Amino acid sequence: MADLIFTVSGTSESPARTRVAARNFTLIVDEPPALGGTDLGPNPVEYVLAAFVGCLNVVAHLVAKELGFKIQTLEIEAGGPLNPARLLNLPTPDRAGFKQIDVSLRVKADADAPTLARWLAIVESRCPVADNLGKTTPVHLRIDPQTK
Amino acid sequence: MADLIFTVSGTSESPARTRVAARNFTLIVDEPPALGGTDLGPNPVEYVLAAFVGCLNVVAHLVAKELGFKIQTLEIEAGGPLNPARLLNLPTPDRAGFKQIDVSLRVKADADAPTLARWLAIVESRCPVADNLGKTTPVHLRIDPQTK
Repeated sequence: MADLIFTVSGTSESPARTRVAARNFTLIVDEPPALGGTDLGPNPVEYVLAAFVGCLNVVAHLVAKELGFKIQTLEIEAGGPLNPARLLNLPTPDRAGFKQIDVSLRVKADADAPTLARWLAIVESRCPVADNLGKTTPVHLRIDPQTK
Repeated sequence: MADLIFTVSGTSESPARTRVAARNFTLIVDEPPALGGTDLGPNPVEYVLAAFVGCLNVVAHLVAKELGFKIQTLEIEAGGPLNPARLLNLPTPDRAGFKQIDVSLRVKADADAPTLARWLAIVESRCPVADNLGKTTPVHLRIDPQTK
């Protein structure tokens, strides 16, 4: 199967706010005032969690279908601790990002507990966002050569 | 500095669409019809890229201030290849998520090229989203015990 290419394009609207175009959609990423922003949208790490939750929903339904059961309702919470010290250039042994991400799935389905446990393991292994967070992803940053 | 805790909560609206609450904000994560959705919002991996772009903008401005220069304009593109085969349970040696993520920053600033190169390296090292993508992040999924 051929790779799909996904891209987005962002424009800085202020030191904390970015307008991001993803196909025909526009997203506002901002920070609450306590983190220096104008609070016109979720902040970047909340977008990461939203991506994760949305991805798990897709994979959860795919895998349930494969295993032969139906999901009636599904609610997913995701969160984790992050020390902003490194971001803010304060002395810290902590990493810059989430130290861990915990996800809780509340599912109503016609499946027993062992089936749901199996389902969950398969979902985690096939979720693109779980893969990019849980494993190393090569990230390459460069200054656009057309910069002034 | 104490950890901050970030959380979001999502509700499945369809097998491909999730309504996500992040504080007072609501986000719709969906898939285009070609990927089984109703196209009412960006898809999960586009949200990952949006998070990354938004995060880089914040850190870019922080670090520029530390280095003593001003950013007049900043545009950031991010993207990468992803093979959906593993997600779809087709035979593949490829990983589930982005194989890599490439980011291009077009910046207009009163700084010379060596300063911008140094700036970029510091930005990458202190960006929470770059950290969570570029390095392993422990991810823990569980079935909510209140799931009947």
